[in-house]
Amino acid sequence: MAGKDTGLNLNITPQTDPKSGVAVAVDLGGTKLRAALSDSAGKILVRAAIPTEADKGLQHVLDNMEQLVKTVVEQADYAKLIGLGIGAPGPLNPMTGVVYSPPNLPGWDNVPLRDIMEERTGLPVFLGNDANLAALGEYSFGAGKDYKYLVYITISTGVGGGVIENGKLLLGARGGAAELGHMTIEARGPRCNCGNFGCLEALASGTAIRRRAIEALEASATHSSLRDATGGNLQAITTELISKAAEASDSFARELLRETGFYLGVGLTNVLHLYNPEIVVLGGGVSQIGDIIFEPMRRTVSERAMPAFREGVPIVVTELGDEIGLYGGLAIVISEQEEAARRKANLHSPV
Amino acid sequence: MAGKDTGLNLNITPQTDPKSGVAVAVDLGGTKLRAALSDSAGKILVRAAIPTEADKGLQHVLDNMEQLVKTVVEQADYAKLIGLGIGAPGPLNPMTGVVYSPPNLPGWDNVPLRDIMEERTGLPVFLGNDANLAALGEYSFGAGKDYKYLVYITISTGVGGGVIENGKLLLGARGGAAELGHMTIEARGPRCNCGNFGCLEALASGTAIRRRAIEALEASATHSSLRDATGGNLQAITTELISKAAEASDSFARELLRETGFYLGVGLTNVLHLYNPEIVVLGGGVSQIGDIIFEPMRRTVSERAMPAFREGVPIVVTELGDEIGLYGGLAIVISEQEEAARRKANLHSPV
Repeated sequence: MAGKDTGLNLNITPQTDPKSGVAVAVDLGGTKLRAALSDSAGKILVRAAIPTEADKGLQHVLDNMEQLVKTVVEQADYAKLIGLGIGAPGPLNPMTGVVYSPPNLPGWDNVPLRDIMEERTGLPVFLGNDANLAALGEYSFGAGKDYKYLVYITISTGVGGGVIENGKLLLGARGGAAELGHMTIEARGPRCNCGNFGCLEALASGTAIRRRAIEALEASATHSSLRDATGGNLQAITTELISKAAEASDSFARELLRETGFYLGVGLTNVLHLYNPEIVVLGGGVSQIGDIIFEPMRRTVSERAMPAFREGVPIVVTELGDEIGLYGGLAIVISEQEEAARRKANLHSPV
Repeated sequence: MAGKDTGLNLNITPQTDPKSGVAVAVDLGGTKLRAALSDSAGKILVRAAIPTEADKGLQHVLDNMEQLVKTVVEQADYAKLIGLGIGAPGPLNPMTGVVYSPPNLPGWDNVPLRDIMEERTGLPVFLGNDANLAALGEYSFGAGKDYKYLVYITISTGVGGGVIENGKLLLGARGGAAELGHMTIEARGPRCNCGNFGCLEALASGTAIRRRAIEALEASATHSSLRDATGGNLQAITTELISKAAEASDSFARELLRETGFYLGVGLTNVLHLYNPEIVVLGGGVSQIGDIIFEPMRRTVSERAMPAFREGVPIVVTELGDEIGLYGGLAIVISEQEEAARRKANLHSPV
């Protein structure tokens, strides 16, 4: 049933045998729903993607998710499957498996996603905040492989993060730790969607870059090629247009991205002082803009962070790309089940 | 040798037997050196204090520390002693036991304090950042007893912190995590001693309150009773004088402390979003000023922090007072030795 009727895009890695699949992952994005089957080392054997169609409501998304999971495990040996890891937008509680009401999933309100998907798939389900799981994915299968203390920051429409402390995800009491996007770096800065002010997300996310551009061009007669590019309709400005204008040496766009890099540098300095990681990994669309943002970001970190916290700490861009969420889902299944096996062994050994 | 010649102030808790002592702690402060002996439940049996006399140099402080430890354990049963916990001002590395060069300990430069004190006392030594250990003390013996996720913030001449995640101290790669005082909350704020800008410490510490008062009174003719209280010599302003002026309804001093409360509220909101604790405990001299600071601090948190992160999370002042550092030192000895015993038991049990 290779998904012909559903727009489902199934992709089996060549020269692999789906029968060695053990872990399943779902990355629930606002626009795209992805799934993968991997072996016990996290090597993806089968992958599939489908539009989330969040606007069609909760039941539709759940049906899509169930169908997607069933598709990627279709050629697997069911008896070998150890679990399903789901990365979803927060706020959610990984301990109870409940997704509260994410802004980009209309109609979702305290959804017991873990229990629902356990019921629908028959697999043990592990639910996590998408940015938290991405950190675990990076730690397990990406640039973090050689480190035990890692911070992952995703900068896209929002800003999110995850922290690995001594090989484990930092969770906090209700699984909400590491909300790096909602750290105030400008006490009297602009209001954030979360209700707080001057958050990193309100200053350096893709949404914030666009908003700052529109506000600045509306407030003054500053010259910018963005006026022509949008035919004077400033609301048509996008982060992509800003990035292109900056590449074409538009000085307004360059200054805007330079300031974005400064804010990211301030946020990164905080991250170094607050979590003392061995490596920082960046992901998300804004991290693809490159040196126009990175150069001022790195300069700010080197001017501001205490040497003992920054020296020898690489700041890199993820190489897991769009699939970082899937790797995170696979990583949580594999690590949780290994941990459970260890606990079981301890329990059964006489002390 | 009750320390008659050294100004040593020995204090044995009535109706306790020093022979049940197992853990020893030292709190190395810039002005005072304290030590205690406790039983296995952290009950202090013997305590002593002596001036640090940091200005007399490293060897003098080490001699004072050695003498102080020997005094508190004098009536103990040596065979029962399981270790010595030392809280010292950072920067330091708890993993290597080395104290770098704390601003208030002149002449200290990469001092292997753990090894030196192991050599001098014959006890296993555990070294920790004083604010980190205070968090552990609060968790083990203070307001944190009923919680597994706690943040401790000390606000005095500087601002420091410690985080307990699932019952364990958050350390980071080199033991430097939770430098809460060096979190920027005002990206273009004043320079901090650490080299960063707009740090919580540079805005809300006792030192910052005093500096902000002097700067504001120098820059304008604003009326304040502080001018009279210091005979016009603004450099004579202290945090204590500011606090007294505010209590006496001096509107300049009240506004200064209200703003301090606002900054602390911004910092606390970050702490809630970044670590998701179950409880926040405040310590240090500035936390004794009370409602003039706490009222705007709490208001700021309730206006800014996301409900899921602040609801049901008490913000309290430590009841361990000046001895919080000692409790931290005792806590690390007791918890590390319990952990070692568990590891040993696991190692010896056939799997």
